[in-house]
Amino acid sequence: MYLAPWRSPLALALHRNRSLVYARYLQLATVNANGAPANRTLVFRGFLEGSNHLMFVTDARSEKTLQIAHNPQGEVCWYFPKTREQFRIAGLLHLVDHDRENLAWQSSRRATWQALSDPARAQFTWSHPGQPRTTESTFSRSAPDPSEPLPNFCLLLLEPLSVDHLELRGDPHNRCRYFCQNNQDNDRHWLIQAMNP
Amino acid sequence: MYLAPWRSPLALALHRNRSLVYARYLQLATVNANGAPANRTLVFRGFLEGSNHLMFVTDARSEKTLQIAHNPQGEVCWYFPKTREQFRIAGLLHLVDHDRENLAWQSSRRATWQALSDPARAQFTWSHPGQPRTTESTFSRSAPDPSEPLPNFCLLLLEPLSVDHLELRGDPHNRCRYFCQNNQDNDRHWLIQAMNP
Repeated sequence: MYLAPWRSPLALALHRNRSLVYARYLQLATVNANGAPANRTLVFRGFLEGSNHLMFVTDARSEKTLQIAHNPQGEVCWYFPKTREQFRIAGLLHLVDHDRENLAWQSSRRATWQALSDPARAQFTWSHPGQPRTTESTFSRSAPDPSEPLPNFCLLLLEPLSVDHLELRGDPHNRCRYFCQNNQDNDRHWLIQAMNP
Repeated sequence: MYLAPWRSPLALALHRNRSLVYARYLQLATVNANGAPANRTLVFRGFLEGSNHLMFVTDARSEKTLQIAHNPQGEVCWYFPKTREQFRIAGLLHLVDHDRENLAWQSSRRATWQALSDPARAQFTWSHPGQPRTTESTFSRSAPDPSEPLPNFCLLLLEPLSVDHLELRGDPHNRCRYFCQNNQDNDRHWLIQAMNP
């Protein structure tokens, strides 16, 4: 598989910021059915094996799953505080829910569930997220089966199509854009362009 | 003026995270003309005097000004690492450019320019941001007039209409949503609702 050229600077940023647990947190923007933007923090869960797809987890009951079904476009903004650099990664979102018929993706969905902590798994048993909290809302601490994901547990994939990398440390700042293109054999390759910051 | 009820927990978060310079950085999501989301890091520049509007600065030549002209909806995602809490602030964006005929906003535009550092002001003299970098691109270090803003310097206001506050520290997490409503006298007031996290 073809490792995209932005993977190397991104790996370096992750390495240099590894002392900050929240360097693995980023913000995902989507568009809701009314055409308004939505934006929330997610935890980066690594790359899908043999691909450049970023992995996240989400609850099938969360608002973002409806948004993605309506408009699969997403842009992640990832700021690294220690090295003062930003990656904006735009592309297509793929929701891998319980029913998704893709063996490789289902296998990654299961592996990601198994890699979660018990408290993280327990959250998928909680009352419907984003609904009004009532006396009947339940938030159990006991963790569900660690081997088999609950039906509402989803893997969320971002298939990158363009990446904008900005480094604030340079004088002037450095900025570089990566574009994904298909060639004649329908193979993907990436073009790189230096930009004014 | 009516201080919105989410101002107090936000002020507390800013105070408790004040040792981190990047606690004033947040991510703004907008929608581009093709209906795709865009997302980038901005620096919070305080509240517009006598209002609940958040202030940012931007360059009139940046892509987001076109996006905002096409669709003024925005959502800010603001994560505070130290206290592990997130504010999602959705609302309407107002671009205060050189031509904007609003005396109070123009006065804040000027004051915000004057409060910038010299290096921050110098960036507004740089070559067109986001365009390909060439040998003719220029990035001067010398700062422009600190008293009168350059024509491409814009103040960007976010007028909040809903706020979603999530605290990850609780067990379970605490989540609360604030909604802006107009009453019969067309006065704005805010409703608060506890949500399932």
